[in-house]
Amino acid sequence: MSQGRVLPMRDRMVALVRDVQDRICADLEELDGGRFREDSWERPDPTGHGGGGRARVLQGGRVLEKAGVNTSAVHGRLSDEAARAMRATHDLDGDAADERRFFATGISLVLHPVNPHAPTVHANFRYFELGDAHAPVAWWFGGGADLTPCYLYEDDARHFHQVLAAACDRHDPAYYPRFKPWCDRYFHLKHRQEARGVGGIFFDDLQDRDPDALLAFVDDCARSVMPAWLPIARRRHGMAYGPEQVRWQRLRRARYVEFNLVWDRGTLFGLRTDARVESVLMSLPLHASWEYDHHPDPGSPEAAMVEVLKAPRDWLGRCG
Amino acid sequence: MSQGRVLPMRDRMVALVRDVQDRICADLEELDGGRFREDSWERPDPTGHGGGGRARVLQGGRVLEKAGVNTSAVHGRLSDEAARAMRATHDLDGDAADERRFFATGISLVLHPVNPHAPTVHANFRYFELGDAHAPVAWWFGGGADLTPCYLYEDDARHFHQVLAAACDRHDPAYYPRFKPWCDRYFHLKHRQEARGVGGIFFDDLQDRDPDALLAFVDDCARSVMPAWLPIARRRHGMAYGPEQVRWQRLRRARYVEFNLVWDRGTLFGLRTDARVESVLMSLPLHASWEYDHHPDPGSPEAAMVEVLKAPRDWLGRCG
Repeated sequence: MSQGRVLPMRDRMVALVRDVQDRICADLEELDGGRFREDSWERPDPTGHGGGGRARVLQGGRVLEKAGVNTSAVHGRLSDEAARAMRATHDLDGDAADERRFFATGISLVLHPVNPHAPTVHANFRYFELGDAHAPVAWWFGGGADLTPCYLYEDDARHFHQVLAAACDRHDPAYYPRFKPWCDRYFHLKHRQEARGVGGIFFDDLQDRDPDALLAFVDDCARSVMPAWLPIARRRHGMAYGPEQVRWQRLRRARYVEFNLVWDRGTLFGLRTDARVESVLMSLPLHASWEYDHHPDPGSPEAAMVEVLKAPRDWLGRCG
Repeated sequence: MSQGRVLPMRDRMVALVRDVQDRICADLEELDGGRFREDSWERPDPTGHGGGGRARVLQGGRVLEKAGVNTSAVHGRLSDEAARAMRATHDLDGDAADERRFFATGISLVLHPVNPHAPTVHANFRYFELGDAHAPVAWWFGGGADLTPCYLYEDDARHFHQVLAAACDRHDPAYYPRFKPWCDRYFHLKHRQEARGVGGIFFDDLQDRDPDALLAFVDDCARSVMPAWLPIARRRHGMAYGPEQVRWQRLRRARYVEFNLVWDRGTLFGLRTDARVESVLMSLPLHASWEYDHHPDPGSPEAAMVEVLKAPRDWLGRCG
């Protein structure tokens, strides 16, 4: 189907992520009242590697303590090791030069609100391609969105899952029951035996149908992130809190740091390659605290949050 | 030499690290006025793995914001993968059952002071053995101590290096010129192209002479940590500081977190095995901040610190 099309899939995905970035940043500026700072960056191309990105950060806002919304589009040649791994997991045969040429584009956002009652949200949507833009030898989509509250509000978790489940259902009713548990498995702090948050959806290596259909699915998911999170942020922003809630928020944000620096494949890949460090680490919160062996008081709201992280729930009753 | 000795080396090293832990904690309690909390832990031994440790933490002190001094002694059987890696790097032949039995003991400390002018110090000394306690098939020592200031005081860096160099020199004049650059290579944040601090000494796989001589060397180094750091902590503790210095301290502590969670082999090993998480992560500071793309003002004391981290110095002029 993609043969003969004027715009190759990679260009359509680049257009999508840039448009989504613009719309999300506009929504967030309206919510917060502050303005995003933009840093465009380019990777020089002396060895066939190139591309660039558009990093946008809003820090120290009225509603948003730290918010990053990044897009990038990079290309280059896979190393021997990366090519071997790719062939093993993606059913490629041969080792034609074409298979070494990769292209990757995506959008990534992390929003850490000021108010400890308002949850952090993360989302990422990406497209990967090997070979020529007009006749790729392999391609796939990946992405997802997940919510990380400090305090448990069951309504918030249900609303977030409902909006994302609806986006999934518009494309395949089997998607949400598959991508919700995948999210729980991915955002898991193995060393703590604890989930990062209350989950959402996560998918990778998606190539199970026509690329046009998958682009439409990813488009729908990406445009569902603000409807999933904004109403929650609006109703939590005005809630009262004190130093004890901020203390707990910083302890929870330390767990966010632990996940991203120890387990997140995207972050580790970025830190071990020549990606722009400040773009990779924009996901980290403004403040985090590590108190030795801290445990919330039994029966407290803090303890209720931890209980759910220890035993992820099936918020919509659809993943049994 | 070790044949016929009543106490095997592993037991002598255990006695050493526990004695050093007691003395260092006594010194620190005298400095701070606060008391360490102790958590003894044991690893149950259903599958031939066992051992335990003594974690000591002082948090929220007058001088020490967070200080951890841990000892442990564990034993078990190497996995196939670990045994293969060990054989490759340690010149073992065969794969006798004896080579699979390991024993490891050590002391590890990290002291994060309250005052931004007072530097963080880290030290670790360890002993590893394969086989039987009375006739090990392989053994080695490792360790080191390094200093991480937020503000550069050249006298502090020189004093710290001098005390450790003197300990090295009492055992081999070739040690310090070898172990100082090794420390710079190890405590390096590759993703930032930046050193963690102003260095010190680091060594691993040390087995180049009689084990008694190496135990004496490690003993000397371990007992030099307080003479290297205490005088600095005493002279910096009373210095005036304000919110801007605390802000910088938290930004620098975020780099400490990045090193420990992304690059430190001991931390990563601990998080991927069944070690006690709170003991492994006691090295993390109480507070850390990530401000997007922060750069100190040119010519400021903060910028002077970063310059030295970008280009580690030969503090004693002995490593040319």
